[in-house]
Amino acid sequence: MSLIVQKYGGTSVANTERIANVAKRVIRFRQEGHDVVVVVSALSGETNRLIELAKEITETPDKREMDVLLSTGEQVTIALLAMTFKEAGQEAVSYTGNQVRITTDDSYGKARIVSIDKENIQADLKQGKVVVVAGFQGVDETGNITTLGRGGSDTTAVALAAALKAEECQIYTDVDGVYTTDPRIVSNARKLDKITFEEMLELASLGSKVLQIRSVEFAGKYKVPLRVLSSFEDSGEGTLITVEDNKMEDAVIAGIAFSRDEAQITLTGVPDTPGVAYKILGPVADANIEVDMIVQNIGDDGTTDFTFTVHRDEYKRATAIMSDTAKRLGAAAHSGDNTIVKVSLVGVGMRSHAGIASKMFEALGQEGINIIMISTSEIKISVVIDEKYLELAVRTLHDAFELEKAA
Amino acid sequence: MSLIVQKYGGTSVANTERIANVAKRVIRFRQEGHDVVVVVSALSGETNRLIELAKEITETPDKREMDVLLSTGEQVTIALLAMTFKEAGQEAVSYTGNQVRITTDDSYGKARIVSIDKENIQADLKQGKVVVVAGFQGVDETGNITTLGRGGSDTTAVALAAALKAEECQIYTDVDGVYTTDPRIVSNARKLDKITFEEMLELASLGSKVLQIRSVEFAGKYKVPLRVLSSFEDSGEGTLITVEDNKMEDAVIAGIAFSRDEAQITLTGVPDTPGVAYKILGPVADANIEVDMIVQNIGDDGTTDFTFTVHRDEYKRATAIMSDTAKRLGAAAHSGDNTIVKVSLVGVGMRSHAGIASKMFEALGQEGINIIMISTSEIKISVVIDEKYLELAVRTLHDAFELEKAA
Repeated sequence: MSLIVQKYGGTSVANTERIANVAKRVIRFRQEGHDVVVVVSALSGETNRLIELAKEITETPDKREMDVLLSTGEQVTIALLAMTFKEAGQEAVSYTGNQVRITTDDSYGKARIVSIDKENIQADLKQGKVVVVAGFQGVDETGNITTLGRGGSDTTAVALAAALKAEECQIYTDVDGVYTTDPRIVSNARKLDKITFEEMLELASLGSKVLQIRSVEFAGKYKVPLRVLSSFEDSGEGTLITVEDNKMEDAVIAGIAFSRDEAQITLTGVPDTPGVAYKILGPVADANIEVDMIVQNIGDDGTTDFTFTVHRDEYKRATAIMSDTAKRLGAAAHSGDNTIVKVSLVGVGMRSHAGIASKMFEALGQEGINIIMISTSEIKISVVIDEKYLELAVRTLHDAFELEKAA
Repeated sequence: MSLIVQKYGGTSVANTERIANVAKRVIRFRQEGHDVVVVVSALSGETNRLIELAKEITETPDKREMDVLLSTGEQVTIALLAMTFKEAGQEAVSYTGNQVRITTDDSYGKARIVSIDKENIQADLKQGKVVVVAGFQGVDETGNITTLGRGGSDTTAVALAAALKAEECQIYTDVDGVYTTDPRIVSNARKLDKITFEEMLELASLGSKVLQIRSVEFAGKYKVPLRVLSSFEDSGEGTLITVEDNKMEDAVIAGIAFSRDEAQITLTGVPDTPGVAYKILGPVADANIEVDMIVQNIGDDGTTDFTFTVHRDEYKRATAIMSDTAKRLGAAAHSGDNTIVKVSLVGVGMRSHAGIASKMFEALGQEGINIIMISTSEIKISVVIDEKYLELAVRTLHDAFELEKAA
């Protein structure tokens, strides 16, 4: 008898028919002898409906009240799912974040889980009940309702799995696993049976929408085996995200991630003085704009060229700031480009394999794809290229590293 | 500086525009120097939407989960109203039933309030905040969410007013007060400035939809002055429901109530033995059918005739039961009528005025209205008549007792 935590997102509980399918699947797990804790999101569309209501009042709703509002979405789902179980003869009980109780800090809208009381849940499981928990929400120490931010239901599921020492945390979604790259771009992209937390983290941070980065971090930290599966297909083992071990498939590259929403800003001829990077990026950070890649080249005349990327939505604001900064620092020029994308190779195997980068650059070069920026980490190589080459680059790299073949 | 509890029902908070109007009104009270606690219902239509979702799953949803589901309705409203206050520069805080905390028994769907923690609310009021409380909901001792049943928001408001020793509990609704009778039937029906709890209780139990009977009972028990006002008109003092006192207007009759949803069942020639009333009504009570008026006449041959009324929706079921009962008791016959109505005169003044009943019967008789049943209490006289006479009877009595004139 092992304990499994399952999380179903908004599209998996979009209506009562789909909720009935979720209940059927969970009951099957029960019949196989598992205890099950189910974490659910709001019915798809519900969170947006609530946000629209708040926007009718103000563009900047009070954060505490916004969490009171949004947390109702998941509460509706837990009630509907629990009554579906009971209608099917399966004992069940629903819990809000407060009822569990999931204690968080008081950062409304992006709260972090501090602790989870597991006594109620364990008592219910012992009695043969399925426990249905509202994702995405908790309460702070004084009982104010908080939410964990978008994708927070994944985090709730992982945190519960960690607290309850579950055998596995299963994230049901509308894809059947993690792929070597987006199958819409590379038709022979391969579903991975396993991937490490680190690789998954890189893929998530690079734009893969399968899992929220915080939940992967959390799962990695507490070593909770995490599995991504489809809630619309009954077969399939999905992809298991787990700690690296010797038995793992020995792939050099796990996958190729990409992000279309990039923009780049360059300052050239900046007098190179100590702290110049801070002088350039400080005002950007002050404006709450997140900077991704940063490249600095030292020029030959005591000046430096400085390039960084931001989310494309922030391009205008960042450019305005750089215009000021360029004047202030006496830079020769500033320029920018919001038609760039980022393509990344990710793989734990890179650590022990030399020559990955050069093979990557060679493959791209042979197709005439010009690399604008390069950034590397221990398990990732990212290049910035013109957006028109995105699909070509991804397919080229997928072929070059033969990702369609299982390792 | 006095404390007022205000309750706004579903139509008063139907959308964000109306919520803004509620906020404006409350802020005006604040500017006049009052502390205000606001109790709100779900946005109109929201509770029905949630019930429909549950009905897609089952006709008999689990009661605990139904309360988890329905309580989200009011939670949405408190968040929207509190953010409206803050947007308008008025400090405010929202509370769910759990957060207040309003402790109830564990009768899901029709829970009764056991106690109210007032410390949080009092601290917030002291800080100049408007406190926005979700009506209709509480938690039982172990933290399960409960609801008080339809109209429960009125009860929440009165209970809070009692706990906080508020100067007045104001119920905002879509009518501007309590009338001598339904103005749709009697065009010169008069709005009452004052009415006693007892009279209001009778009016409520007799079909007046202005206030829920439980909230009136509660207000009477704790002597909370209750005022009914329109949330759509700014002028007007509404109707104050209060304890009887010497300064009160000296009306004999406060108003005329009526109920269209009546049905009557008669057993004739029942052998008259001790306990026969129980033998007749026991099976009806066992079937959970509520009986209203009961009349028993002793016949001259050792038999008795027995008549009672039920809600028209229960007529079929009650008739089927009576068919069995008639056989079992050896009654001569059973008959019924589901085209009857009840008209009632209500007034505390009746106590000290003789001849009200005879004046009532005389007025009806002059119009040729046949009385089928009569039932009296200390402050009420009800007659059952054929439904075709309803409007005529109400107008006749309104004229006969000159209710259009202030006392």
